[in-house]
Amino acid sequence: MNNTEKGKLTAGVDIGGTDIKLVLLDNRGEVVAQSKIDTDARRGPDQALERLMEAEKSLLTSRGIKQQDLRALGIGTAGPLDIARGIVVQAPNLPGWEGTPITEILTRGLEIPVFLENDANLAAFGEHRLGAGQGSDSVICLTLGTGIGGGIIIDGEIFSGVLGAGAEPGHITIDKGGAICACGNRGCLEAMASAAAVARMAVDAVKEGRGKIISELAGGSADKVDAETVHKAALKGDADAVQILEKAGRSLGVGIANMINIFAPRTVVVGGGLMKAGHFILEPAKEEALRRALKAFTQGVSIVPAMLGSSAGAIGAACYAGHKIKGL
Amino acid sequence: MNNTEKGKLTAGVDIGGTDIKLVLLDNRGEVVAQSKIDTDARRGPDQALERLMEAEKSLLTSRGIKQQDLRALGIGTAGPLDIARGIVVQAPNLPGWEGTPITEILTRGLEIPVFLENDANLAAFGEHRLGAGQGSDSVICLTLGTGIGGGIIIDGEIFSGVLGAGAEPGHITIDKGGAICACGNRGCLEAMASAAAVARMAVDAVKEGRGKIISELAGGSADKVDAETVHKAALKGDADAVQILEKAGRSLGVGIANMINIFAPRTVVVGGGLMKAGHFILEPAKEEALRRALKAFTQGVSIVPAMLGSSAGAIGAACYAGHKIKGL
Repeated sequence: MNNTEKGKLTAGVDIGGTDIKLVLLDNRGEVVAQSKIDTDARRGPDQALERLMEAEKSLLTSRGIKQQDLRALGIGTAGPLDIARGIVVQAPNLPGWEGTPITEILTRGLEIPVFLENDANLAAFGEHRLGAGQGSDSVICLTLGTGIGGGIIIDGEIFSGVLGAGAEPGHITIDKGGAICACGNRGCLEAMASAAAVARMAVDAVKEGRGKIISELAGGSADKVDAETVHKAALKGDADAVQILEKAGRSLGVGIANMINIFAPRTVVVGGGLMKAGHFILEPAKEEALRRALKAFTQGVSIVPAMLGSSAGAIGAACYAGHKIKGL
Repeated sequence: MNNTEKGKLTAGVDIGGTDIKLVLLDNRGEVVAQSKIDTDARRGPDQALERLMEAEKSLLTSRGIKQQDLRALGIGTAGPLDIARGIVVQAPNLPGWEGTPITEILTRGLEIPVFLENDANLAAFGEHRLGAGQGSDSVICLTLGTGIGGGIIIDGEIFSGVLGAGAEPGHITIDKGGAICACGNRGCLEAMASAAAVARMAVDAVKEGRGKIISELAGGSADKVDAETVHKAALKGDADAVQILEKAGRSLGVGIANMINIFAPRTVVVGGGLMKAGHFILEPAKEEALRRALKAFTQGVSIVPAMLGSSAGAIGAACYAGHKIKGL
């Protein structure tokens, strides 16, 4: 550590159902260290937060950084949250965490300011500050996983939504009579453009005797087909696989057009596991979005792949902590 | 005028393609006077703004109010606007107004602070402060006319959007293969739940030999069918008319659900000419919206008819001027 960096570090934490990611960020936006521990959600929040604080201290020690060089910590988890009070209100992936005063526990344990935010919003903030949305003050970030999450940055600030849960672009209806969604409705973006949606379309194709290469890659068993199988088959030239990814991409494009017509962002960042299929998804999505959105809103809009990968949430949390203490 | 009201008046102006509405609001939120002049858009902005200032002065004089009792003026027009500079950027209904520094001209002429905003946002602000959204900090306002406009209030503030054009909820895709919209796309909310959409469905019905009462009311001429004809036919018990309004209402409900899933508002206010058809539209809309939106977001949401009618924009502009000068 040289002198200019002293006291200029922030930490970022992303609490997921499976693991807790932790990063240390210096004042130039470089990740100086990162680690990961099991969430072990069954054992409850107190035990997990205790282990998190230990992990954070040993991460500092391992790099020869003193505790007092850490200025603040940002922490993200799935909402709904009570951001003002630093409390998890509902936690579908973290049973028993409801009502946990995360901010209070960590502030007391680490003796630094701690800021809680929605994980999808923090990933968007990370991409805005250090990733694919750099240089853009208004960023929509969509994450294509089993579901579709989203974060929104307006004028350089996180749009937390009225309930602090952020927006749920995955559950915008884009096709009112369309496929059934996990939420119970028809035609949600998530039901038509997520990794689960791609897998479902591929399983249907295999059962109908289409998607020969998809079927081969899955050893002839439709149950083993997932979004990755479809991507691999597309790379090997399976026309049905290409078509499934294009269909998901076009649906994604409708969802992006809707977000453009509401927020008029400069940059739309698309990340998540399904984006491993890259241009098979993103090119049709771009085409559909730019064709559908209002022309007044599409001038100068970029629709680009995410850059920060699975660390986006933790990196965004560290950026956000730095952003917040400047305003303290 | 008693003493407490002196210097506590604000003016609100709503510039439309046909007329310019003007209201004076006292500090208790009462409209003390209002008037209307022709926009006479062909003759350009300078002439119209000159006549507006004269109208404002004679409105004051007619009520025995001194110019110095007026504290500020809010003014609304269709976007996109450059709000910071007080300039109209694009003006589809006001040819020749592009680039007009409205705020500067009026500030110089009236010698009071002037605030420009998007007209749909000001209507929403009016409903939030003095109409159907009173007591709610977060309000979505949808206006069902020939098209569908919208305004968004978050935490008591107007959400202007990145380009100052506000959001365009009328052009959210809710049915990607649905009816063709004036914007060129398919399945926009506007193409399925506006007065024009209702008229189109009714014309189709009449041409197919359905909607007997609609046809009678239009004197057998499908060209004369408009949304009002459909409403009148519904009141007379025409089952096809009722079904058309219900269909539009259900589409509206999908759009409302989308806005709820993005903004989690407390109140959704629905106004505009088509709302003369009241419960024929609003009841199916409510049912569909509450069924579709995420349960975490619908608790305590009210979906209600607008209260301020066609003056909502001007009243909202006057409220907004009062709101802004408190922050000056």
